[in-house]
Amino acid sequence: MKAKNAIYAQSGGVTSVINTTACGVIEAARKSKNINKLYAGKDGIVGILNEEIIDTNLEDLSEIKKLKHTPGGIFGSCRHKLKNVEESEREYKRLIEVFKAHNIGYFFYNGGGDSQDTSNKIAQYTKDAGFPVTCIGIPKTIDNDLPFTDNCPGFGSVAKYIATSTKEAALDVKSMSKSSTKVFIFEVMGRHAGWLAASSGLAQDKGNSAPHIILLPEVPFNENKFLKKVKEVIKKEDYCVIVVSEGTRYKNGDFLADAGTVDSFGHKQLGGVAPTVAEMISKKLGLKYHWAISDYLQRSARHISSQVDLDQAYAVGKAAVEFAISGENSIMPVIIRKKTKPYSWEIGKVELSKVANIEKKMPKNFISKDGFGITTACKNYLSPLIQGEAWAPFEQGVIQTAQLKNKLVRKKLKTFRI
Amino acid sequence: MKAKNAIYAQSGGVTSVINTTACGVIEAARKSKNINKLYAGKDGIVGILNEEIIDTNLEDLSEIKKLKHTPGGIFGSCRHKLKNVEESEREYKRLIEVFKAHNIGYFFYNGGGDSQDTSNKIAQYTKDAGFPVTCIGIPKTIDNDLPFTDNCPGFGSVAKYIATSTKEAALDVKSMSKSSTKVFIFEVMGRHAGWLAASSGLAQDKGNSAPHIILLPEVPFNENKFLKKVKEVIKKEDYCVIVVSEGTRYKNGDFLADAGTVDSFGHKQLGGVAPTVAEMISKKLGLKYHWAISDYLQRSARHISSQVDLDQAYAVGKAAVEFAISGENSIMPVIIRKKTKPYSWEIGKVELSKVANIEKKMPKNFISKDGFGITTACKNYLSPLIQGEAWAPFEQGVIQTAQLKNKLVRKKLKTFRI
Repeated sequence: MKAKNAIYAQSGGVTSVINTTACGVIEAARKSKNINKLYAGKDGIVGILNEEIIDTNLEDLSEIKKLKHTPGGIFGSCRHKLKNVEESEREYKRLIEVFKAHNIGYFFYNGGGDSQDTSNKIAQYTKDAGFPVTCIGIPKTIDNDLPFTDNCPGFGSVAKYIATSTKEAALDVKSMSKSSTKVFIFEVMGRHAGWLAASSGLAQDKGNSAPHIILLPEVPFNENKFLKKVKEVIKKEDYCVIVVSEGTRYKNGDFLADAGTVDSFGHKQLGGVAPTVAEMISKKLGLKYHWAISDYLQRSARHISSQVDLDQAYAVGKAAVEFAISGENSIMPVIIRKKTKPYSWEIGKVELSKVANIEKKMPKNFISKDGFGITTACKNYLSPLIQGEAWAPFEQGVIQTAQLKNKLVRKKLKTFRI
Repeated sequence: MKAKNAIYAQSGGVTSVINTTACGVIEAARKSKNINKLYAGKDGIVGILNEEIIDTNLEDLSEIKKLKHTPGGIFGSCRHKLKNVEESEREYKRLIEVFKAHNIGYFFYNGGGDSQDTSNKIAQYTKDAGFPVTCIGIPKTIDNDLPFTDNCPGFGSVAKYIATSTKEAALDVKSMSKSSTKVFIFEVMGRHAGWLAASSGLAQDKGNSAPHIILLPEVPFNENKFLKKVKEVIKKEDYCVIVVSEGTRYKNGDFLADAGTVDSFGHKQLGGVAPTVAEMISKKLGLKYHWAISDYLQRSARHISSQVDLDQAYAVGKAAVEFAISGENSIMPVIIRKKTKPYSWEIGKVELSKVANIEKKMPKNFISKDGFGITTACKNYLSPLIQGEAWAPFEQGVIQTAQLKNKLVRKKLKTFRI
């Protein structure tokens, strides 16, 4: 019997190393006799539903290797969430139709918590429908909020970007503080968990006291307490660097800056906490400020990815294929920390049913007593994840990236309306 | 007769390579018999007026060498502009007092257009007052708007940051555009000249069409024309990356986002053009957007400095000292482009009186016909300036920087009130 085909799809917000995971999946699949062709969904699961299926076997291995220094999602990603089977069965039926038409036996879904949930549902549904497809979730999220894995591929690179950017900008502000800007506010991603904002704390060393204040979603924001802290810092240092998580909220749960819109997963869209905080400081303390929001720049900054993150992103992709062909199903490869000093890790696994819809927030012992900083325990956890500089090749002064053909296979089915 | 001392000061907004210029000055001064001690003004000229003078000779050469990978201004900078002699002579008198007290024969002032003007005035005043001090201006500005020099140290590194960040973020947005963000707006610095926004055009290659729209201060903003262009891009590409200069203005001269405040040079403080443009796109076209403002991050991003920029920043510092000891006065070292392909350059000089208060804007033939992009001539000019990756050493996953003692010399004068 000819081996079954496999399909890989990227889901949710992309990262600077999700394509490295894709590279791990592709290289492992090409080596395996148990997998015939490896396909990829164009724009994630939307492409699978639309039968827009990329044949990755048409790509040269030399170009596939360049995925290791290509940010973004090379096959396209999406924010489409499958409903529960009870609510709407038609998308699940369609998936089976597509899987059957293209002889798919393995589904690799590379995303965050929502995507793990989806993978689990598909595994269950295909089994129940008598066309069992092996479903392996592959972790990816810059938010680092997936449970059971010590950390998430994608996170370490943004953490490294934030730590270095914070140190660099702090040196800038410090040199100007005598007669110009006193306060610099750097807004970073992190909707519900403060892992990214916390990682700015790794910028601190014997020559650099910044960031002086970290605002985390885990700590309810108190304006008076905050302004008092800013004043203290200015008195001592003559400048103040603040890193604020986009998800910072008041005690009543309101976000400091709520744009009022929701994405297709029903999550609130945030943005603009930095100018809100800047306004407070200007009005109440009369200090000159500057602020930055790096938004997508942080999560796509492959030029400053962490080597550890890159290695782990590759490893979870490779492991997903290996688990699948060894007979595992409905699981997600996880990163297990064996030791912190010196850092060592290995790949493990967890059942998808356990992962779904749990968000891992910063534990209490990682947050300093006053709520404006991180503890040594937190630094010890974070530090290994930003180690190693995975310098990318540059061409004409700009980062060099892969260019895939992304050729679609011929459609066999009728059009489907999502 | 014992050789005279020299003093170096940093002025205005700092860059990722101004300390590399400082390194060039210090190393050249240490080698010269004509210069006894090299001092540095703490926080720029403010420190000289306050007789807060750093003795750079107390620093180890190994730490001085680390200045090549230390962003910000290591001795502190300021935005203090000396008045005309006719308006207020007391600051000039004070400078002579300080120069006499510390046997200063050479003054190196590292800054933008305003600082070159100041250097020129000091040279003239000290000469007229019978205590002639050799004044050499050293170019520095990320805005690239100084005349007579082919380009300005500090610019190339930000240009490289912007080109790579634009490409990285574009790949991110492109992968999400099917079901999420369609428009990404990246606001960059550049008050009056569009050199930095223009440099994003270097991100374009055969695999990347972004940025699709560049908004320059040189081109009056027309909302209808702009929105039409966005629609066209979306129709063709399904996503749109816009790079907007903070100095973009309407035909009547109003900035798109005017914060309403001015700095001590009398320049308007800008910020927040990106959300203004985003709002237009959301309201009029109903497209989902994201925006980033990297602010100080761009000008302090030493981790992605251009090697060409670094080499030139060092060279102008070294040349300043060499010009001074060879008897030159009231001049500024400039970068002369000998050839574009392959790129070669050398150091020349220009009289300070010619440089003062001229801003070099983008010439017409560098801007595309529709005003939303750059021409091949512009790319040919910009491209050499971002070549070479000047990777910095990292320590514990974060950029490693110099830590100077910055010890002040004993004061000899009475306190001065600025």
